[in-house]
Amino acid sequence: MLITESALREFTENIFTAMGCNITHARLAADVLLKADLRGIDSHGVARLNGYVRLWEKKRINTNPDIKIVHQTATTATVDGDAGLGLVVAPFAMQVAMEKAALYGSGWVSVRNSNHFGIAGYHTMMAVKKDMIGFAMTNASPLVSPTYSSERLLGTNPMCYAFPAGKYPPVIIDMATSAAANGKLEIAQRLGKQVPDGWIQDKHGNITTDPHALKSGGALLPLGSDFEHGSHKGFGLGATVDILSAVLSGANYGPWVPPFVAFLDPPTDPVGLGIGHFIGAMRVDGFRPVDEFKVHLDNWIERFKSSATVDPAQKVIIPGEPELEAEVARKINGIPLVDAVVNDLNVLAEKFGISKL
Amino acid sequence: MLITESALREFTENIFTAMGCNITHARLAADVLLKADLRGIDSHGVARLNGYVRLWEKKRINTNPDIKIVHQTATTATVDGDAGLGLVVAPFAMQVAMEKAALYGSGWVSVRNSNHFGIAGYHTMMAVKKDMIGFAMTNASPLVSPTYSSERLLGTNPMCYAFPAGKYPPVIIDMATSAAANGKLEIAQRLGKQVPDGWIQDKHGNITTDPHALKSGGALLPLGSDFEHGSHKGFGLGATVDILSAVLSGANYGPWVPPFVAFLDPPTDPVGLGIGHFIGAMRVDGFRPVDEFKVHLDNWIERFKSSATVDPAQKVIIPGEPELEAEVARKINGIPLVDAVVNDLNVLAEKFGISKL
Repeated sequence: MLITESALREFTENIFTAMGCNITHARLAADVLLKADLRGIDSHGVARLNGYVRLWEKKRINTNPDIKIVHQTATTATVDGDAGLGLVVAPFAMQVAMEKAALYGSGWVSVRNSNHFGIAGYHTMMAVKKDMIGFAMTNASPLVSPTYSSERLLGTNPMCYAFPAGKYPPVIIDMATSAAANGKLEIAQRLGKQVPDGWIQDKHGNITTDPHALKSGGALLPLGSDFEHGSHKGFGLGATVDILSAVLSGANYGPWVPPFVAFLDPPTDPVGLGIGHFIGAMRVDGFRPVDEFKVHLDNWIERFKSSATVDPAQKVIIPGEPELEAEVARKINGIPLVDAVVNDLNVLAEKFGISKL
Repeated sequence: MLITESALREFTENIFTAMGCNITHARLAADVLLKADLRGIDSHGVARLNGYVRLWEKKRINTNPDIKIVHQTATTATVDGDAGLGLVVAPFAMQVAMEKAALYGSGWVSVRNSNHFGIAGYHTMMAVKKDMIGFAMTNASPLVSPTYSSERLLGTNPMCYAFPAGKYPPVIIDMATSAAANGKLEIAQRLGKQVPDGWIQDKHGNITTDPHALKSGGALLPLGSDFEHGSHKGFGLGATVDILSAVLSGANYGPWVPPFVAFLDPPTDPVGLGIGHFIGAMRVDGFRPVDEFKVHLDNWIERFKSSATVDPAQKVIIPGEPELEAEVARKINGIPLVDAVVNDLNVLAEKFGISKL
């Protein structure tokens, strides 16, 4: 089913409003989800709406949060999200970071007591629009095993870095620190296909190609897959995200991060509040004039795009470019939703008494 | 050959002094190299001294540099290293970052016109000693191909993040953004052994296990090895380092980064000055009280160290811990140097008329 951006946006705003969000929060949360759907990152868009509703029903998401700075210096701050939607808390944190950057060159915000924040790229793009470099990370419920471990101790903990270019789209590097995303496993499960060696291990810690191993107590592997190929580096990156997002802010970290799914209860011995993010912004002109930076980033992009490749039909991909192409196309053609998602959304519509899709 | 720290330090300082460094610079540069040798990162210690000398002989390293801030805000700065040793320029940049952090919570320095800066961990540990979180990255001469490319366009571009703990050693994540380090290839070449799939490709961009392929026009692969296992993420990390270190500072980036070896000339069409670094420091107490942070980081470390593992004899490794163990042992037992390095160093001693090892 193809649905127009405006129809899906209105529907999503109506759901958030029905959950008790004020109109500003409802519009912002819908904007974050729609941005994912527009950019082709379907796993992080309206497909998650049902999950947010279930967490709200369990009172694990507060739709009327008092989001506030609880500690700060000129360029650093800790924000408490009051168990609000990460879709609303993270843009608040980025706003704080950007205000500090406008005054002092850079701003850095560690966030506690939040929830899933959607695509990291949304938050970094706020900075890019102001000629700042954007940083965004979040920890997440444990699915990944460190090198040598047979336990799930880290989330897929994404990191995102975004840079404003001149005549080209911004360079947006937005990546999980695991070898494969959970969404890719789910596709293999649905198709009954094996997955490549190096994505997951079973509950004993042995590498497997069975996509169902994750649900039977297995784990995703860090970027690098095994020690020989640098999985200790992927573990190090996931650890960096966890420490900056949660040990620094007072959120839960490691295996204590509460699950995103409502049918799993949070740990009964929390070490902090909710999940954590780390958000930052630096003014480009804190380092060199913006025009100079953009001329050189354009040159960088051109050189990498024009690289010789193994297969002449497959060029080097500049991070962020395919997502922008999807956004342009979907704004015109509409957003494709699979039947399962449409059904889920229409069940929500019935529950809240709003118009179906 | 085992040599005491103090003897190797004195020797190294003498070489730098003979190259024209003032005593402060000579001591600092020697300290950076010794730290690598002590910590078991032999590829980045005195084994590189000969390489620095050769670059100096070609006038590509200036041993009497006027290192200065050329652009700044309260918390950001661009430093020009005046073609000095990165071993001296990077600590200068970290000092600037820490002074800004002391005043405003954080400090960020992009560096141009520098050279190889030794181990990134040295610079981040300067911050950790002051209860700050340390960041250090550098670009490097091109050896790595982006996903799909058959050209060398990026260096092994390391990133380092360091966090002060309480009763445990600091967590120091110091990693190249390639799947394997060049040093590991050189070992395989010497032993005449094949390397694992996923480390390198040949000059046509095909994955190979021949360790000599790199020298015949091949390339190292980004962390993740191939697209299926996330090499686009390793490419994204290497790109992030390149942009923050060089596009932001006005250094050379991508394939324009000058080679570290004196027998290869720098590109004749530079896009900037020398190589680039990116250095940062954030005060922990800009986010929460230091003691609280350390209690939780200790708890994080304990939980990960005590994780169940596939092989009970192989525990999860906390980044930075094996290096500290090596440092403690080598301070007592001495630093092992292979014959080839000792011979190289003694040739230098003869050249400069200083005492041999």
